[in-house]
Formats: sequence, structure tokens, C-alpha cells
Amino acid sequence: MQAITIPISFAPLDTLPAVIRAGGVEADRCLVVTDEHVAVRYGDAVCNNLARNEFEPRLIVLPPGEESKSQDRLAEIYDRALAWGIERSTPLVALGGGVVGDLAGFAAATLLRGIPLFQVPTTLIAQVDSSIGGKTGIDHEAGKNLIGAFYRPTGILTDPALLKSLPTREWTSGLAEVIKHGLIADDTLFTELETQMDALFDRNESVVERIVPRAADVKVRIVCEDEFETGLRTILNFGHTFAHAIEKVAGYGVYTHGEAVAAGMRAALHVSKHATPGFDAERADRIVRRIPVPPGLASLSIADLIEVMKFDKKVRRGSVRLVLLDRIGHAFVTGDISSTLVEKAWAFVQEAIG
Amino acid sequence: MQAITIPISFAPLDTLPAVIRAGGVEADRCLVVTDEHVAVRYGDAVCNNLARNEFEPRLIVLPPGEESKSQDRLAEIYDRALAWGIERSTPLVALGGGVVGDLAGFAAATLLRGIPLFQVPTTLIAQVDSSIGGKTGIDHEAGKNLIGAFYRPTGILTDPALLKSLPTREWTSGLAEVIKHGLIADDTLFTELETQMDALFDRNESVVERIVPRAADVKVRIVCEDEFETGLRTILNFGHTFAHAIEKVAGYGVYTHGEAVAAGMRAALHVSKHATPGFDAERADRIVRRIPVPPGLASLSIADLIEVMKFDKKVRRGSVRLVLLDRIGHAFVTGDISSTLVEKAWAFVQEAIG
Repeated sequence: MQAITIPISFAPLDTLPAVIRAGGVEADRCLVVTDEHVAVRYGDAVCNNLARNEFEPRLIVLPPGEESKSQDRLAEIYDRALAWGIERSTPLVALGGGVVGDLAGFAAATLLRGIPLFQVPTTLIAQVDSSIGGKTGIDHEAGKNLIGAFYRPTGILTDPALLKSLPTREWTSGLAEVIKHGLIADDTLFTELETQMDALFDRNESVVERIVPRAADVKVRIVCEDEFETGLRTILNFGHTFAHAIEKVAGYGVYTHGEAVAAGMRAALHVSKHATPGFDAERADRIVRRIPVPPGLASLSIADLIEVMKFDKKVRRGSVRLVLLDRIGHAFVTGDISSTLVEKAWAFVQEAIG
Repeated sequence: MQAITIPISFAPLDTLPAVIRAGGVEADRCLVVTDEHVAVRYGDAVCNNLARNEFEPRLIVLPPGEESKSQDRLAEIYDRALAWGIERSTPLVALGGGVVGDLAGFAAATLLRGIPLFQVPTTLIAQVDSSIGGKTGIDHEAGKNLIGAFYRPTGILTDPALLKSLPTREWTSGLAEVIKHGLIADDTLFTELETQMDALFDRNESVVERIVPRAADVKVRIVCEDEFETGLRTILNFGHTFAHAIEKVAGYGVYTHGEAVAAGMRAALHVSKHATPGFDAERADRIVRRIPVPPGLASLSIADLIEVMKFDKKVRRGSVRLVLLDRIGHAFVTGDISSTLVEKAWAFVQEAIG
């Protein structure tokens, strides 16, 4: 597999026209896909700025929330883009969080067999995680993200200043992924988080400006080594096999993804401690448990959670695989974990949260 | 752009299980997508053979014809594949002509962000052209192939013996693409066609076994140099800007794609002669005109045809580009052709056919 580069600019939102041109786009038309929440805040500013810079923008605004990652909404983007008469050179800007990035990214991947895609993430989770790495897709009634494509964005414009207006719950949920990046691949980042969690909860501007690119860079490095998730990239799923089970059993939307990941990482740390007795799981857990998780999680059925884990997308030939840590900053994948231990990990988390 | 290889096996259909295993597939389940016509002839044989070789095949049979390249049929494949519980390692075999290859290929490209795809082309046009090069997709009411992806098949199994049972009209239509490959990039192939057209019309076995891989190889070489159609690959559209206009104005299905391409090549040869006066267009036309084209084509409105050409997918910033020849075996792309000349080319073809 050849090395790839991931073209992220950490820069103010108003540099978008320059970022698109720097991506080699000569077209004048420009699709901008966003959701209602983001449109209220940034829709006009982005479109006016594009118009001032020799683009003809066309805004497509979708309802917010995971429900928009559907075949119907995808078809709506297709209809509007194709009725407008886009060409292969017409760029599509995905302006929003993970839902917009995944859905609009998949539309860009599949319109005319691929048009230039620019990700402009507006949430913390999108800035450090979902906008990076080319995963796009929609949900199916059989599960989340079951239809999609790997598609490289032509550019990613990440402006940490956009995060000031994020609702508190989305902010703290995003911090779960930041912590995850430290835990799996960057012990220096994790050590910095240990001293900066208060500043991060307060969204201290200079700390945010420093940590976001650091956390994003962990994802960049991993994706560059394993674009199509055939090996190393799996470690990004630390806590996620548990998290997906929580989201499915509780019902999507009851917990944020970050909340589920935080609880899932606590379970995975518990298993990691058993797999590598010398591992300082308590040190890791001390930071992870600062992410608030609604207590209702303690009453989910453990039997149901385990059942769902068996059907996770990362299943290979029927056996559940888990990402574990053997030290802070280093993760590994194993298929060798007993159901009993997984059950104990769930019990640990439920007791800790309840 | 790095060099790619295209894994075609020219071998009997019953080697399919070995071809799939050679592609690195360890899964036991195997999706087979085909259409009703092909299912009658090969469905049982393929599935029984897979079952005898430690696969668990699941056959999905779609209605034949271009109408199946729709979002609805795609959703049907998604539903059935996901309800069955496929994993990322589950292969999908696209057994059929261009429609099946495009539709099932796009399903494989987008299920779980991509599962291993095996193309088993059963028509001449699919064997020498559409199964090679990774273009997959479906139609939209705004036009053909407007939704899709570039997706590399893990393997292509091409068995020229399957062509014996092809209806005559599909066979002769496929010959149009064979001739095209000689004209644009292989003068030796073209010279051979000049002496072998009768044998090809008769489907002489040894001639077919020799010519199919030769014609396929032209496509392979071009795609290897330009996988994503940013340059050289455009020459494969020789005759196609005209052909797409014919298909659209006449209504899809009135002419086969190959018939439209044959007529389109005659128009493109006429333009080529004007662009390069020394070019022996008559020698080329002598072979192209052996492909039967229904005479109704002579009564299509030239104004309508030209209007449609302006909206072809290969339009760049509003100007129509054409692929032309300057000698047999060498094509080039130009944006520099007057509407008047295009009109004359249409008039020439209509007179010649009418």
C-alpha cells in the first residue's frame, strides 16, 4: 500500500474559497451541504464568502441528526445536485458534524463517480476524527454505516474556533475521542490531557487550538499507514465495539456517540487490565471517567449488549475482536477474549456509572 | 498515479471458485448477482459449482435490462445482502452483461464500504469493455451512469465460450466495441479485424478465443495508465459522445449501445477526416459500417442530437469535447470542433444509414 497524504488546513473558516482553489478546483459552481443547525450559524457566511470569491454556491440544508444518514436523504442530494447540472469538476463542501460529513461525503463519492469533496468539520468529534480518513456512508435498517465508501477528500478545512458555539454535551462527547487518540497512539498527548482536562472543559482557546491539531494528527498518522482498515486502523475502534452495542441496545440518539465511547473505553480498559496485568488501567480510567455519561446506561441488559457485540461490523468469521491497550499510547487487537471477561467488564462499567 | 494491475483470467466458467480463492477470499458465503436471462442459463451451474467448492452461495436475480440500474434495485441488493448478514470478506460475483456488472459492482463498492467483487462478464461488450476498468454505477432520471464509483474488482473471469449463446444483435453490437479498440489504440488488431470480420460474424471459435483477449487487452492497457479518467482513458469514448446522444434522443433501449456506438464512430470518423485530411477514414469506415444499425436512426432530429451532446458527462466548463483519430490505432481529444462540422457529421451518417 502506497503512502498517502491527508490535506488538512487548520485555518479560519473564511479561507474556504482559497482551500478549494488550492485543491485544484477550477469550476465556478460549488455545492454546500449542511444541516439546519449549522446552516443557521454559518450558511450565509459561507455562501456569501464563496460568492465574493468567484464561486456560484448552492446550499442544500438537511434535517439534523442521525436519521438523515438515509437512502432517502442521499437521493435528495442526488436529485438536487443533478437537477442543477453539476459536472465532474464541481466541488461539494460538507459543512457540519459527523452526520453531514458521512452523508455528504458519500454523495460526493458517488455523484458522477466522484466529485471533489471538501470537509469542513464543525464539531470536535468531526475535527479530530470523522472528517479524517475518507470513511463516508449512510445507515441501513440492519445497522449503522452499512452502506458507504472510502473516499479521499480533496481538502479538509478545520477551524477550532467554530467549536466555541458547540453545545456542552457535544463538546464533552468529542473529548472522549481526543482522549482515545492519546490512549491508543500518543502517550505525550495523554500526559498533556492529564494536566489540561479542566482547561479543555472550559474550552480555553489556546489549549483547544493546540490540542485539536494534535488529536487530529493521531488519526492522520494511523490512516496514512492503513487507509482501508486492513490492519493498524482497527485500533481507532478502541472502546467502539462496546460503544456500538450501547448505542444499539439503548436506541440510537439516547446517548451521544462520545458518551457511548467513553463508557466503552472504560469497559475496554477493564479487559485490558486483565489481558496485561502490568498495565496502569487506573491512570487511564481516571481521565476517561471525567467524560459525563448518563446513569441510565447502568440499567441496560448485559445479555443484550453481548448479543449485539457478536454482530459488530468488525466481526471476522464469527469471532468478536477487541482493541485493547497494553500501555498508555499503545493498542493492539485480539480475538482471544472470553465472554465471561466481557461480561465482567460490562458489570464493572455499570457499577461505576450507576 | 501509480501503476495498477487488472486481474483478468481468460478461463472456463467452472474455474470461478478457484478464481475467487486466488483473490484471497477466505469467506464461505458468496453473493451471486445476475439477471433473469443469465440465471436461466448459468445460475444453477454457478451456484452448484460454488457449493461443491466449500462456498455457501446466495443468488440474487434481477429483471434484465437497463431499467434495473436504478436506486430501487440497488436498495433491493442492499436489503438482501445485509439481511443475510454479509461480512466485509464476503465476495460478490457479478454474473452477466454490462447492466449486471455496473449495478452489482456498485453494490459491492458500497456494501460495508466495499466487499470483494468478481466480474464474470457474459456478453461480448462486457468481456472486452465494461467489466474492465472499475466503473460501476446506476442511472438517474437526469441521465445514465450519473451515480456510481470507481471500484477495482478483485478478479475478472472471462470465458469467451459463454458468448456462443448470445443473441445475434448483442453479438454484433459487441463487435462495435472490438472495432473501436483497434481503431483507437491497436492498428495490428484492426488489420486482423479487416481479414476476420466474416469469421467474427460467424463466431468462429478459434477467432473469438483469440480476438476477445486482444480487444480486452487494449482496455486493460489504457485503464492501467489512467484509472480515474483524467486523461488518456477519455479515448475509450471514441464515438460515444455521438452514441449517447442517439440513445437519449431515440429513447434508451431503441438501439443497443453497440449500434449507437457504431453510428457514433461513423460520425466521429467523418469529423476526424476533416480534422486530419491525410487520415484514411474510408478504410476505417469500411469495417465500422459492417455493424448493422437500424435505419430509423436516419430520422432522428439533428438539432436534438446536438443539444444532448452539449450536456454529455464529459463536458468540461461548457465546451463539447470529441475523441478523434489521426490515424488507425491512434486517437486524441479535442475541444476545438465547430457545431457546423458536428452537424455535417450527423448528416453524413444519416444519409449513409437511411
